Amino acid sequence: MQKEPKLTLVGAGPGDAELITLKGIKALQTADVVLYDALVNEELLDFVPEHCPKIYVGKRAGQHSLVQEDINKLIVKYALNCGHVVRLKGGDSFVFGRGFEEIDFAKSYNIEVQVIPGVSSAISVPALQHIPVTNRGLNESFWVITGTTTNGKVSEDVYQAVKTNATVVLLMGVGNLDVIVNAYKAEGKHRLPIAVIQNGSLPNEKIAIGVVDTIQERVEELQIGAPAIIIAGEVVGLHTEFQKIKESYLYVDNL
Amino acid sequence: MQKEPKLTLVGAGPGDAELITLKGIKALQTADVVLYDALVNEELLDFVPEHCPKIYVGKRAGQHSLVQEDINKLIVKYALNCGHVVRLKGGDSFVFGRGFEEIDFAKSYNIEVQVIPGVSSAISVPALQHIPVTNRGLNESFWVITGTTTNGKVSEDVYQAVKTNATVVLLMGVGNLDVIVNAYKAEGKHRLPIAVIQNGSLPNEKIAIGVVDTIQERVEELQIGAPAIIIAGEVVGLHTEFQKIKESYLYVDNL
Repeated sequence: MQKEPKLTLVGAGPGDAELITLKGIKALQTADVVLYDALVNEELLDFVPEHCPKIYVGKRAGQHSLVQEDINKLIVKYALNCGHVVRLKGGDSFVFGRGFEEIDFAKSYNIEVQVIPGVSSAISVPALQHIPVTNRGLNESFWVITGTTTNGKVSEDVYQAVKTNATVVLLMGVGNLDVIVNAYKAEGKHRLPIAVIQNGSLPNEKIAIGVVDTIQERVEELQIGAPAIIIAGEVVGLHTEFQKIKESYLYVDNL
Repeated sequence: MQKEPKLTLVGAGPGDAELITLKGIKALQTADVVLYDALVNEELLDFVPEHCPKIYVGKRAGQHSLVQEDINKLIVKYALNCGHVVRLKGGDSFVFGRGFEEIDFAKSYNIEVQVIPGVSSAISVPALQHIPVTNRGLNESFWVITGTTTNGKVSEDVYQAVKTNATVVLLMGVGNLDVIVNAYKAEGKHRLPIAVIQNGSLPNEKIAIGVVDTIQERVEELQIGAPAIIIAGEVVGLHTEFQKIKESYLYVDNL
C-alpha cells in the first residue's frame, strides 16, 4: 500500500541529544526517511527505525552542501515515494534554519506538513552556562540576530541593536566578532559584558567571557571558533566567571 | 540517609505536554519534590514518582500567587530536607521566567543547580502556526520583549523595536495591545502583518491575524485574551490566512 506523503520538521535542539522534545522523538520513531543537517547530534538517529534511510544533507569538510533547492526537491521526492519524511535540523527550524522554505515547497505538492519546534541555541546555550537572556532589573528584552547574512556579513540590524538595552544574541557570528565588537565600541560600550560559547551543550563546550574591549583576546587565547554563539548584555555579568573581571576593574578604577 | 540537596530548573515548553525535552522528563522521574507554575501542563506530573509531593506555586483565580521570595525559600527548604527539587516552569525558565533569581538563591545555600532549557513560546507558538520568526529575504533578526513590566506597562523597548525590521514578539502583552498597535501606527506601519495567538500549542488555541490597523477588531471578534503572544512583522504575512487579507488590500488599492 502506498503510504500517505508527509513532512515533519523537527528541531533537534542545540546539540545534547537529550534536548530534543518528546514529540520530536515520536516523529523520528515513525519516520520512513530522515534527512538531517550538520550540527544535528547523530545519536538521535538511534530513535529511527533501522530499515529507514538516514540521509545527511549538511556540509562536509571541503565539500559544498546541497543547495536549498536540492533539499526541497529531495524532501518531496521521498515523501511521494516513501511516506513520512522527518527533516531533522539543529536548534529550531525557524531560527535562521530555512525551515519555512522547505514546508512551503512541500505544501505546493499538497504534502501534509507538521512543525515540531526545537530548543533554540539562542536561548539554551547561554542558559546552560547559567546566563539568562532576560533578568528582572537588568533588561526587558532580547534580540536574536544572524551573524552571517547571504553576503557573508553581519546583519545591519546589529548597528541598531548595540544602541539598545536588549540582550543581543548573535548566531553564526564568531567570524565577524571584530565587526560586532567595533559596533559596541562606537557606542562607547567598552565594558559591556560579552561571551562567546562554542559547541554549547556538548562535552567539548568552550566559553570565553569578557567585556567588549577584551573579548577578542580571550577568544584567541582559548582558540574558540565556529560553531559558536555570541551574547552581549548586562546579563552576561551574572556568570560566576565575571565576578573576577568586575573586581579587577574595580581595582583598576580605584588606583 | 540524607539525600544530596539539588535544584533542577526545567522548562516545560509552551503547553503541549509532548514539547518537554527528554532531559526534562528524566529530571521529573528522579524528583523528590516538584514545584510547578501556572501555564505548566499538569499531564507532565505523570512522569513524577507517585510518592513525590507536587506543589503548585502559581496564581489561583482570585488568589495571589506566592511572591518570588517565598518560592525561593520553598526551593531551598525542600532541597535541604528532601533532596532533588525540580522547578517546572512554563516555556523556558530564562525568558521572563525569573529562573535566575531562583538558581542564584539556591546557590547561596551551596545547593547544586542544573538548568534544563525548554522550548520557548516566543519561537514555538508562531512556529506551530507555520509562522517562522525569521525567513530569508524578509528579515535577519527577531526581538522578544515583555508586554508587561513590573509597573504593568509594556517595555519601553517596544518604541525602538517598532522602528526596526526585526520580527517583534511580545509575551504577556495582549492587555497592552492598544499601546503596541499605536506605537506601530506612529511609525506609519499601518499594514504591517500582526497576529495574536492565545493558548498556543493547546487544543483550545486561537489565532487572530490582521494588520496593525485591523488586529484589535479581530482580537475582539474572536474574544482572544491572556495567555497570548503577539507577533508582528513581514513573516506573519506567510500565514495561509493572510493571503485573503493581502488580496482584499490589493482590491481596495485598485478601486
